[in-house]
Amino acid sequence: MKTIALDIRHALYFAEKEYDALKDAATAASSTLDAGTGAGADFTGWVKLPSETSAETVARINATAARLREACDYVVCVGIGGSYLGAKAVVTALQDNFADHYLPRPSEPKLLFAGQNISGEYLEELCRLLEGKRFGIIVISKSGTTTEPAIAFRELKDLLEKQAGKEKAKDLIVAVTDGRRGALRTMADKEGYETYVIPDNVGGRFSVLTPVGLLPIAVAGHDIATLLQGAKDMEAETAHPGSDNLAEKYARMRNALYQSGKKIEILVNFNPKLHFLAEWWKQLYGESEGKNGKGIFPASVDLTTDLHSMGQWIQDGERTIFETVLSVRKTPVERRIRMNAENLDGINYLAGKTVDEVNAQAELGTLLAHEEGGVPVVRIELPAIDEYSLGQLIYFFEKACGVSGYILGVNPFDQPGVEAYKKNMFALLEKPGYEEESKAIKEKLNK
Amino acid sequence: MKTIALDIRHALYFAEKEYDALKDAATAASSTLDAGTGAGADFTGWVKLPSETSAETVARINATAARLREACDYVVCVGIGGSYLGAKAVVTALQDNFADHYLPRPSEPKLLFAGQNISGEYLEELCRLLEGKRFGIIVISKSGTTTEPAIAFRELKDLLEKQAGKEKAKDLIVAVTDGRRGALRTMADKEGYETYVIPDNVGGRFSVLTPVGLLPIAVAGHDIATLLQGAKDMEAETAHPGSDNLAEKYARMRNALYQSGKKIEILVNFNPKLHFLAEWWKQLYGESEGKNGKGIFPASVDLTTDLHSMGQWIQDGERTIFETVLSVRKTPVERRIRMNAENLDGINYLAGKTVDEVNAQAELGTLLAHEEGGVPVVRIELPAIDEYSLGQLIYFFEKACGVSGYILGVNPFDQPGVEAYKKNMFALLEKPGYEEESKAIKEKLNK
Repeated sequence: MKTIALDIRHALYFAEKEYDALKDAATAASSTLDAGTGAGADFTGWVKLPSETSAETVARINATAARLREACDYVVCVGIGGSYLGAKAVVTALQDNFADHYLPRPSEPKLLFAGQNISGEYLEELCRLLEGKRFGIIVISKSGTTTEPAIAFRELKDLLEKQAGKEKAKDLIVAVTDGRRGALRTMADKEGYETYVIPDNVGGRFSVLTPVGLLPIAVAGHDIATLLQGAKDMEAETAHPGSDNLAEKYARMRNALYQSGKKIEILVNFNPKLHFLAEWWKQLYGESEGKNGKGIFPASVDLTTDLHSMGQWIQDGERTIFETVLSVRKTPVERRIRMNAENLDGINYLAGKTVDEVNAQAELGTLLAHEEGGVPVVRIELPAIDEYSLGQLIYFFEKACGVSGYILGVNPFDQPGVEAYKKNMFALLEKPGYEEESKAIKEKLNK
Repeated sequence: MKTIALDIRHALYFAEKEYDALKDAATAASSTLDAGTGAGADFTGWVKLPSETSAETVARINATAARLREACDYVVCVGIGGSYLGAKAVVTALQDNFADHYLPRPSEPKLLFAGQNISGEYLEELCRLLEGKRFGIIVISKSGTTTEPAIAFRELKDLLEKQAGKEKAKDLIVAVTDGRRGALRTMADKEGYETYVIPDNVGGRFSVLTPVGLLPIAVAGHDIATLLQGAKDMEAETAHPGSDNLAEKYARMRNALYQSGKKIEILVNFNPKLHFLAEWWKQLYGESEGKNGKGIFPASVDLTTDLHSMGQWIQDGERTIFETVLSVRKTPVERRIRMNAENLDGINYLAGKTVDEVNAQAELGTLLAHEEGGVPVVRIELPAIDEYSLGQLIYFFEKACGVSGYILGVNPFDQPGVEAYKKNMFALLEKPGYEEESKAIKEKLNK
C-alpha cells in the first residue's frame, strides 16, 4: 500500500457520540473550503496548488537549485515561521541523522537556516562558519521587512558581497517574495536577483509546496516532483466533500475529542527524523486554530526518547490529552541485533530482529499502554519517510487543518495574534511611525 | 548581580489568593524535602549533592575526561532519559550553535548521543560516521538492561572492538552505573572498564550533577567545578524552609496558577542554545508531577522562532496556560546592526543597536503582549549562559520540583507510569519471563 492511512479505532470510542454528531459539520466545512466561500477564502490557494503546479515551475526550481548546488558549499535559507519550518521539516526528514557532521561535498552544499531568531550569538557563529566559504542565500519573505529575517539578510548579504564581490553575490542570492510589492521585491529587482513568487492566496504556514519550501528542498538534493506528486494524489483523495476522506475524518476526530475534553494533542513520532515535521505541524494547527479563546494545544514528543521524560505524564497525568502517532511502515535499513555469547545485557532474546522491528513493538506496546491509560490514539501510517509519503502527509495535514478550523468555527487562515508582540517590540525600539505607541508603552513601564 | 533571580510580578495577580494560601504548604513541603521525611525520601540524595561532591571526585572526572579527549575524536554517550538529557542540555547551552559543522580538533572530540531511541537508521548512520574514526563510549545506565541503551551499546562496543582491538577498546569505554549490582556493573568489572557510580539515592532525572552528567560535560570541555559551584551556592540559597527562597516561590507560584486553572506551563527561551535545557526541564517536572491524574503539562517554545508558529495560540488560544521565561541578562557577543544607505528593508532605525538588544526588546514586548492576552508570566533571570549560571539554574529547578511535587501531593521521585509501555513491549517481543503477558497481549490483539 503506497498511500498514507488513517486509523481512528483507538480514539473513536473515547468520543463516538461527538464524532457521529460532527458528520454534517465536517461535510459542510469541507465543502466551504473547496468552494472557497468560507472565512479567509482569499488564502485558500494552497488547496489546488499541487495539481496546478506546472512541470515548468518544477524544472525552473530544479535549475536554480542545480546552479546553487554547483556554486555553493553552504546555502543559507533566511526566513521565519512558514518561510522556515516547511523546508526544515522535509530536509530533516530526508537527510542522514548526522549530516551536519560531514563537510560539504562538491555539488552537495549544506543547507543552513537563519533569520528564524534574533540571537546575536547565532548570527555571529553562523558568519564565522561561513567565513571564507563559498555560500549562497535564499531569502524568503513576503514583505522583506520582517525583523528577524531582515536583520539576518542584511548581515549575510554584507558578508557575501565582501567575500564574493558585489557582482558575483547577485548570482548567489535568490529571493522568494511577493510578486509585485514589498521591500524584498524592490531590492531583488534593483539588484537583479533571481526571484520566485509567493502566491498572494497562500499563507505562510501553507506555503511549503510553493517555492518557499520547494527551492530549499531541491537545493538539499531532494526530488520535489515526487513530493508534489504525493501531494497531488492526496489532493485528489480529499477532493470530495462528504466522502468521509482522510482529511475530514481526522478533522472530525480531533474536534470530537476536543469537545469531549481533550485539550492537548500530542503529535508522536518514533523516528528522530520526523522531529521538525512536528514543529511544522504545530505552526499549521496552532496558528490556524488557536484564536478566540479556543483551539487544541499542539504539542509533540519524539519516542521512545521522550517515553523516558514525558512518558510518565502521558501515562498517568491529567486525562486531557490525545495522541496522533506518525507510524512509519517501512524503514530503509535492516540493521539486525547480534547474538552475544555472554548476554550480560540480557537482550539476546532480540538477536536476529532488526532494530526497527523492536521499535515497531515499542510503538505498539506504547499505543496499548496509553490507550489503557485513558489516552485516545489516532494513528497516521506512512508507507515510508520519502518524498512521496511526505508530500501526501503535508497535503493531508493542510487539508485537514482547513476543515478542522471551519468545524471549530474560526478563520483558520488569519493570525491576528502574531502582531501583538511585534507592535510592542516596534514601540519599544521606537520604530518610525510608532511614536504614539512608544510613548504609551514607556509610560506603562514606568508605572 | 551574579545570581539568578525570580520575578513573579507578571504572574502573581492572576492567582494571588491561591499564592497566599499556599505559604504554609510551601514551607511544609520544603521542610519535608530537606528533612528527608516525605514520599520517595530514599531518592532525595540530590538535595545535598553539590555541597557533598568532593574536589577529588571532580579531579577524577576531569582526569578521565582528559584521557578520553586525548584518545578520541568522537565520544558517544549511551543513555536515555536522565542519562541523556542533563548532559545534552548543558553541552548544547555552552557550545557553538554550529559546532556540529566543524570536524573534531585534536583533544577536542565531538560529543555524540546514542541509546536514546530505537531507530535503526539512527544507529546505522552513527556507525557509518564512526567508521574508521578514533572514538570512545560513555555508557550510562543504572541496570545496563534498559532496552534502548543496551541495543546501542552492544552495537557500538562491537564496532569499537573491531576497530581498536578488544584490549584498547577497554580503555576507551567508561561505564557510569550502579555501585554494586546490575548487568553493566558486572560487565564493566569483568571487562575492566573504568567506572563511575550512580548514587542509589539519586533518580535519573535528578542525576545531571553526578558523573552521569558531569563526565560527558567535562569531555565536551566545560568547567564542571564551576557548574557545581553554581549549584552549591543555590543549594545554600534554598536551604532554609520557610525563607520564601527562590525554589519555594516558584513551586508556590506554579501550584497557585495550576489551582487557578492554568493547566499548561510553557518554558520559554529567547536563545536557541537553551532548547535542550527545556527538554531536560520537561522530564524533571513531567515525570515528577504527572501522576495520579494530575500535574501541570510541561511544554516549551524557542522564541522569537516560535512566535511565528505557536505565538498565535499563546496570544489568543484557551486561557489555560502560563509561561516561565528564561531571560538571559548578558550575552558574550556584541554584534551591531549596520546602517545601510538604501534602507530598503527599513531597519536602519535599529542601526548601532546590537542584535541582542533587539532580542531583549522582543522579549519585553512579548512579555507585555502575553500578559495583556491573559497569560501569566514567571521570569527567571540568568546572569549569563555559562557554567556557573547553569549550575544555579539546574539546582534551582530540581529543588523547586521537589517542593512543588510535595505541594501538589504526589511522590515527585517515582515514575510508575514509565513501566507500562516497557511491560507491553517485553510481552510483544516475548522476553523471557513475560510468557504470561505475551499470551495475554496477543489474545487481546487478535480480538
